[in-house]
Amino acid sequence: MKINEHYRELPESYLFSTIAQTVNEYTKAHPEAKIIRMGIGDVTLPICQKAAEAFAAAAREQGEAESFHGYGPEQGYEFLRERIRDYYASFGACVKMDDIFISDGAKSDLGNILDLFDADNTALIPDPVYPVYMDTNAMAGRRIAFLDANPGNGFLPMPPSGQRGDLIYLCSPNNPTGAVYNRSQLTEWVEYANREGAVILFDAAYEAFIADPELPRSIYEIPGAETCAIEFCSLSKLASFTGTRCGYTVVPKALVRGGMSLRKMWLRRQTTKFNGVSYPVQRAAEAAFTEEGMDQCREHLDVYRENARVIRETLAQLGIWHIGGTDSPYIWMQCPGGMKSWEFFQELLEKANVVGTPGSGFGKNGEGFFRLTAFGTKEDTAEAMERMKRM
Amino acid sequence: MKINEHYRELPESYLFSTIAQTVNEYTKAHPEAKIIRMGIGDVTLPICQKAAEAFAAAAREQGEAESFHGYGPEQGYEFLRERIRDYYASFGACVKMDDIFISDGAKSDLGNILDLFDADNTALIPDPVYPVYMDTNAMAGRRIAFLDANPGNGFLPMPPSGQRGDLIYLCSPNNPTGAVYNRSQLTEWVEYANREGAVILFDAAYEAFIADPELPRSIYEIPGAETCAIEFCSLSKLASFTGTRCGYTVVPKALVRGGMSLRKMWLRRQTTKFNGVSYPVQRAAEAAFTEEGMDQCREHLDVYRENARVIRETLAQLGIWHIGGTDSPYIWMQCPGGMKSWEFFQELLEKANVVGTPGSGFGKNGEGFFRLTAFGTKEDTAEAMERMKRM
Repeated sequence: MKINEHYRELPESYLFSTIAQTVNEYTKAHPEAKIIRMGIGDVTLPICQKAAEAFAAAAREQGEAESFHGYGPEQGYEFLRERIRDYYASFGACVKMDDIFISDGAKSDLGNILDLFDADNTALIPDPVYPVYMDTNAMAGRRIAFLDANPGNGFLPMPPSGQRGDLIYLCSPNNPTGAVYNRSQLTEWVEYANREGAVILFDAAYEAFIADPELPRSIYEIPGAETCAIEFCSLSKLASFTGTRCGYTVVPKALVRGGMSLRKMWLRRQTTKFNGVSYPVQRAAEAAFTEEGMDQCREHLDVYRENARVIRETLAQLGIWHIGGTDSPYIWMQCPGGMKSWEFFQELLEKANVVGTPGSGFGKNGEGFFRLTAFGTKEDTAEAMERMKRM
Repeated sequence: MKINEHYRELPESYLFSTIAQTVNEYTKAHPEAKIIRMGIGDVTLPICQKAAEAFAAAAREQGEAESFHGYGPEQGYEFLRERIRDYYASFGACVKMDDIFISDGAKSDLGNILDLFDADNTALIPDPVYPVYMDTNAMAGRRIAFLDANPGNGFLPMPPSGQRGDLIYLCSPNNPTGAVYNRSQLTEWVEYANREGAVILFDAAYEAFIADPELPRSIYEIPGAETCAIEFCSLSKLASFTGTRCGYTVVPKALVRGGMSLRKMWLRRQTTKFNGVSYPVQRAAEAAFTEEGMDQCREHLDVYRENARVIRETLAQLGIWHIGGTDSPYIWMQCPGGMKSWEFFQELLEKANVVGTPGSGFGKNGEGFFRLTAFGTKEDTAEAMERMKRM
C-alpha cells in the first residue's frame, strides 16, 4: 500500500482553517472582544427572496410522490443551464448549453478538473493567489512555476518569455488582490495559450463585481478562448450561495488536447465521480437568474460595493497603499510601517478586534500585504474602519 | 500539455448513460409503449415529510439575514454528524463524530478518496460490481485485479490466496447481486486487510435494507475494522435522497498507512477541494434521522421490500435462478434460455417494455445475468411481473 506521498509536502492545514483556529483561540482568551470578521470571503447578506421561495417550494416538491425528483442529469438540469447561457449572453459572451456543467461550487471543480491532466505538466500560477490552485497541483505532484505579481505589474502578471506552461491559472477579478485584467491583457494570454497548446483555467468567481463595461467578465469575451480555456464560476458571491452551494464550469467543445475533447473527458469524469447537484438547489439558482432575482442580487452587490468604497476611502485617508475594491470585493493593502503580514494580522486582531487575511498566506509576493473583504455588513465595515483609524 | 492518457482506455460512456440512451431511442421509435423502468437504481417514493419540512424551513432561513448560513464546515455540521453517530450506534457500530465526513453522495467520495493513494497500487475489485470502482481506478491507471464472484461462491468472493491487494472494494448488500456478507466472512476480510496492510473501501449504500439482525450493516461492527477500513454510505436509498444529495464517509483516526493518518489526509483533501454540503440539505438529512423521520423512511423501505418479494416470487414461479432481494433492493437473475445479458435486455424492452440492467455491464462474470430493482412503485412492479409471466 502506497499512499499519495505528495500529501507529506503540503502544509498540514488549509490557510483559512489556520486563520479560523487562531481567531478561535483569541476569542476564548478574550470572550468580551467584539470581533469583526473581514478574513474569509464569506458573504453576510441572505440569498434573494426569489431564490429562497423557489428553494423552499422545490424542497416541498421532494416530499410528494408526484413532484419528487430522483437522480438528475450529472451535468445539471437544462432549466438552469439555459439561464446560465442567457446570463453569459447578457454581457456578450457566447457559451453553449451543452458546454455548461452545473456543480456544487467552483472550489470543487477547480480541484477535480485536474483529473483530466497528466501529473507531468507545468502549472503556471500567479503569486500571490487563491491557495487552492497551488495545493491541488501539489497534491498531484505537478511542477509549479510562479508568475510574479507585484506593485510593478499592478498584480497582473503577463505571459512570461522563456517559461513554458501547460496549465495557466488566471483569476480576474483577482483573489486576493482585487486586480482585474483588461481586454487586451486577456487577449495576450489567449494568444499565448493557443500558441503554446496550454489550457487556461479561468476563475471568474468574482465577475459579478465588475461594474466597468470595458472590463471582460468572462474569458469567452476574448476571441480564440474557446480553443484554450475552461471557465469556473459560482453563485456564491453573485447570489449569496456560499452555504447553499452551486457553481458552474464551462468546457467548450472546441477545446481539444492530445486529440481528445476535454469536454468529453470532463463529462466522463463527472458521470463517473459525481451525481449532480441537489434539485432544489438548482431551482434556487434558476430563480436567482430570473430578472426579478437578478435585481435582488444586484441590490446586495451594491451594499458590498459601498463597503468597498468606505474601505478604500479610509485607507486613502490613512495614506496606506492599496489596490482593488472597485470592480472587486477585495481590497489589497500594504501593511503599515513595513510590518510583515502575520504581524499585522495579530496587531489588527489584538488592537482593533478586526480579522483580515495575511497576504503571505497567498504566496511569497504577498508578504507585507493584507487582504480585506467588503462582504461584511454595512455597520461592521464602518465600525472596523473607525477602529483602524483609531489604531 | 499532456492529457491524462488513461481516459483513452475507458469505454466512452458510463453504463447507465448507455442504457438511458438505448431506452430513449426505443421510446422515440415507439411513443405508445408504456415503459417500466427497473434499470437504474433510483427510488420512486419521495423523501419523508419530516425531512421535506425541515428542508423547506432551512431554505427559507437562507433568505433571511438573521438565519442565513454562509460557508459551513467542510466536514459537515455537527448537528448532522451527531445523528449519524447515533444511527450507527443504533445497530451496534461505534463511530466517532470526528471521523464522519458529510458529502454530496457516496459516488463522489468513492471516486475522490483515491486522491489519497498512489497510482502504483493494486485494487482488488469483485466481478461483477458497481462500475464506478473500476472506472475510477482505470482513470488513475491503477492496476486492477478482479475477485471472481459467481454462483459457486454465492457472488461473495473471499480473500484470495497468492493475490496481494492494496485497495479492496467490498459492497454489501451488493450492487448488483444483492448478496450480503455475514459476520464471519467480513471478519476474514478485516483480518486479511490488517495482515496485508491493505485498505478496505466498504460501500454500505444499501445497509438500510438489511432486515436480518445477524447480518452486519457496517464494517465497523467487525473488530479491527477501524485500522483497515473506510466506509461510504448515503441517504439516497435510506431516505430517498437520490435527487437531494447527501452521503457520508467514515475515516477512522486509527487508520494509518505509510506513517500518515488517512483521516488527516482526507480532511486536507476535503478542505482543499470541497466546500461542504448545502446547509438546507444537511437540515433535511438531520430530520430524516430523527425518530419520526426514521419511522417514515421505514414505511418506504417496506414498500420496496414487498416489491422485492413479489419479484422473487415471480422468478421462483417461472423457475428462474436468482439471488438477492431479501436484505437488498436488488434481485440478480439468470437470463432465461441461456440468453446473453444485452440480448435479454433487448428482448425484455421490446416484448415487455420493461427496462433492467444487463449483468455484463458489471463485469465479465455478469454475462448471462440480469439485475432488477425493487425501487419501482408497487403498481409498476406488479405490472412488470405480469408482463414477464406473459413473456
